[in-house]
Order: sequence, then C-alpha cells, then structure tokens
Amino acid sequence: MNKQQLFEQICLKRSFLCIGLDPVLEKLPPHLLEYENPILEFNKQLIDATQDLCVAYKPNTAFFESYGAKGWDTLAKTWAHIPKSLLTIADAKRGDIGNTSARYAEAFFNFEKSGMSFDAITVAPYMGKDSVTPFLNFENKWVILLALTSNAGSADFQHLKSGGATLFEEVIRKSSTWADAGQMMYVVGATQPEAFEAIRQQVPDHFLLVPGVGAQGGSLSEVCRYGLNAQCGLLVNAARSIIYAGNGRDFAEKAREEALKLQQEMAALLEAAGLV
Amino acid sequence: MNKQQLFEQICLKRSFLCIGLDPVLEKLPPHLLEYENPILEFNKQLIDATQDLCVAYKPNTAFFESYGAKGWDTLAKTWAHIPKSLLTIADAKRGDIGNTSARYAEAFFNFEKSGMSFDAITVAPYMGKDSVTPFLNFENKWVILLALTSNAGSADFQHLKSGGATLFEEVIRKSSTWADAGQMMYVVGATQPEAFEAIRQQVPDHFLLVPGVGAQGGSLSEVCRYGLNAQCGLLVNAARSIIYAGNGRDFAEKAREEALKLQQEMAALLEAAGLV
Repeated sequence: MNKQQLFEQICLKRSFLCIGLDPVLEKLPPHLLEYENPILEFNKQLIDATQDLCVAYKPNTAFFESYGAKGWDTLAKTWAHIPKSLLTIADAKRGDIGNTSARYAEAFFNFEKSGMSFDAITVAPYMGKDSVTPFLNFENKWVILLALTSNAGSADFQHLKSGGATLFEEVIRKSSTWADAGQMMYVVGATQPEAFEAIRQQVPDHFLLVPGVGAQGGSLSEVCRYGLNAQCGLLVNAARSIIYAGNGRDFAEKAREEALKLQQEMAALLEAAGLV
Repeated sequence: MNKQQLFEQICLKRSFLCIGLDPVLEKLPPHLLEYENPILEFNKQLIDATQDLCVAYKPNTAFFESYGAKGWDTLAKTWAHIPKSLLTIADAKRGDIGNTSARYAEAFFNFEKSGMSFDAITVAPYMGKDSVTPFLNFENKWVILLALTSNAGSADFQHLKSGGATLFEEVIRKSSTWADAGQMMYVVGATQPEAFEAIRQQVPDHFLLVPGVGAQGGSLSEVCRYGLNAQCGLLVNAARSIIYAGNGRDFAEKAREEALKLQQEMAALLEAAGLV
C-alpha cells in the first residue's frame, strides 16, 4: 500500500486508527480457550469486528514468538486474515548488520519464503544505515523507524543532546536521507506530545506511527495539534484499551465500542482540520 | 550458565570462540538438500564437528525466521542439539516497552512456553532501561547489550558525542547500573579495536561479545590486547568464515579446521596472558 492509498483509506473510513494485536493467553476471554488456537480466534474476531473503523493492524511479534513456532504460525494466519485494504504492520523492532537485516526483511515481506507479507515493519535505528536499508528494497513496503518511543526508558538515550540536536532528532535527520516519505515512517510516542512540533518541522510529509494513546495515557487531541499534515500523516495505535475492553463472549463488540469511540474522535479531528 | 562456569569452560577448552549459526539455504552444501530439513542437518553436523573447540553457539534469529514458522521450529531444534556445557546465545537484537520485552524474554528463556531456553539474548538499547530489565528477571540468564557494533552503520549514531561521552559509552555507563557483570555482557565489534581500551576502563569485569573477526576483517590479537581480563572476558564470534568454509560432503570437517585455527590462536593468547 502506498502513501496515497493509505490517505484514501483514512478519508474513506474517517479514521487513522491502528489497532495493536498484542494477545496474551491468560488475558483472553475464557470461552476462547475451547478453540484449538485461542489466540488466532481472538485475533480473527477482533479483526472482523473492527476492520471498518481502523486503517491498520499492528501485531507485535513478541506476543507471538513467546509461544514458539506455534506462535509464529499464528502470526502468519493472523496476517492472512487481515483484509488487503488495511495496512499491516509487523511491530518487530528488528535491525542488524546488512546481510542479516536482509533476512529479517524476507521474514516479514517475502510471502513465498516466510508465509507473510506485511506492508510495514518497525525497525530500531541503533545500528545505523546499513541495518535499515535492506528493508527498503521492497516495492510498496514501509520502514517505520523508532524515533521517540512512548516508554519511560525513552529518556535514557533518545533525549541525549549532541551538537544541539537530541538523538531522536538526529535519527530522523539522517534516516530521512535514506528514504522519502513514501517509504519511511517514524514511531513517535503520544506520551511526549511536546516533541511533535519539532518533529513536524523536520519531517512535514512523513507518516508518524503514534503509540501511547489508551493504556499508556497519551492524548489524541494533543497529538493531532502538531502531528496532522495535509495527508493526515498520523497512524495512532491503541492496543490494550481496545482488545481487552471486554472479557466475555461479547469481547469483540466491546472492542468495537472502544474502537468506535476513537474513530469518532478522529473523524471530528479530521473534519476540524479540513481533511474530510 | 554463570560467569565462573563460563570461565571454567574457557580454561578447559583453551578457547573463547563463539560460533555464529547463520544458515542460508542457498549456501548449504548441495547434498544436504536431500534431507527433510537441510538447515537443521547443517547446524547439527556443524555443532557435532566443532563443540570441543568453542564455548558458545550464537544462532541469529533472522536466518531462522526468514523461513517462517518452520524456521522457528528449526531454531528450537538447533538450540536443543547444543550440549548444555556450551553457552547458547539467541542473537535476536530485541527490545521493546516493558510488557513487550517481557514476552520476548519468554520467547527465548522460558522453555515451557516457547520450547527454547537460551542462556543469553542480544538486546538493542535504544528504548532504554525498561526495555532491557525484563530480560534480567531470569536466573543464570544473560543480557548481551549492543554497545559498539561491527558494521559501517555503527558510525551513524553510536559515535555521537554527548557531554564528552559517545552514545555507546553512555549506553555502557547507564546499563552497567542495571545489572552487574554476572548478568550483562556487551557487543563490541572487532572492527573497532581502538575502542576496547576505553570500554575496558568502563567495564573491566564484563564479558564482551565480539563479532567481526573472520568475514568482517577484525583482528583477534588486536581485540585481545585490551579486551582480555582476569576471567578472559571475551567471547569472539565467527560465523561465515567457519560455517561456509567448505561446500562439499566434508563441510563439517572444513568448518572444524577453521574453528581449530581460531582455537589454537586463542590458546596461545590465553597462555601469553597467563590465564591457562
């Protein structure tokens, strides 16, 4: 999916919601444990119930590989269940030397080899350019590079100042020369809304993937104040607040209700910005 | 495996060699393609042929997950084939917000859940303390944190200076307060031997995992000049130069010959340092 197609989906659905699929067996509605693969059933029902309200799904690989090979199979089957009109993001935070990152790219982008072909993958920037560029050798695929994350630990290194710029600003500055806004997005946490203004000056056209709304406490309107651009430019992720909204047989309806609240907030913000 | 046990193995084998298992189907000796799982067979024969010459094996997860769920199963079976007297390192370069890193830790350390229980995992530091500490909640397990990597891209961010210290020095300084030398190691590339002296001043007692000898061109004696400490303190990794030393039916013997050369160099360096 390219940038224009993504923007069209955002306008169509009046939503820039990304739903994070972070399934944990112990948190599932108990009745799902009767299924052969409870996590897959959970994901499928969530996707079926919310796909008209969001434009992207973001399974986090940690929640699948913690179950070993079976979990990896569940990840592939979850990916396969997501309709092609939605952006699929492998939240994998990979990154290694060039020949190794090329293998990670195959894992997430090469269906013939791995059984999955996500539209995008999150990548960690610490190892620099040659750890990122192998993911860019795929048409219509996206790298979503960690810039300023939503967790407390983001303060440890990402805010270090070097020559007037913080590390996350330097990550954005350098990496924005490796690929343009048609192939690169950045992770910027909703818990740090004061950073959006400066980041938007650095990368006015790029999409930002924004975690931290919902369970982590970030504010959607704060994020939008500086984050929105002419093609929306935001994918706001919520995971726990949606997928664990209910714990009964109606969990998917409860998830839909939470997703709907966010979609309606988003529609109002898109309207106020004159984008829809 | 704890630090004392690791040092005992190093003395016993007169080796601080770590062999990287980075299997690629297209590079395997052709006769292995007759097996049901050629990569598993390749790994098993390599392990059988070299286990007395090295103290650690380091499968890189990228080379397994590029084959999807089947590759993940091969990773578990490769891990299971490694004798318990050797340190097993999952070269995974993971790292995410706390509740997610906890899932990655289960993936690699919790046998009951994932079918694997490596001794150590490589972790990327970009997301800070709470992305690293979940891996430390396992007894006798190690975090090997990326500090200064062996690739060209290490120059992009790891050498940025902030308040007189480079980013990799700051990563070492802060993270060495999160766990001691009994639970934490650092990745320091052999291609940057000039950094070892300063790093040894920061962390005199920690083990360093050193990639970049072999195919990447780093020098073993240069690494040892400043890197060795009273308990050796080094695990030097070689992958391609060993595992692809031969491409015929004798590939495992050829791999052994290459491993033996490195082990003999290492024995001489350990002797010269008075450690064995």
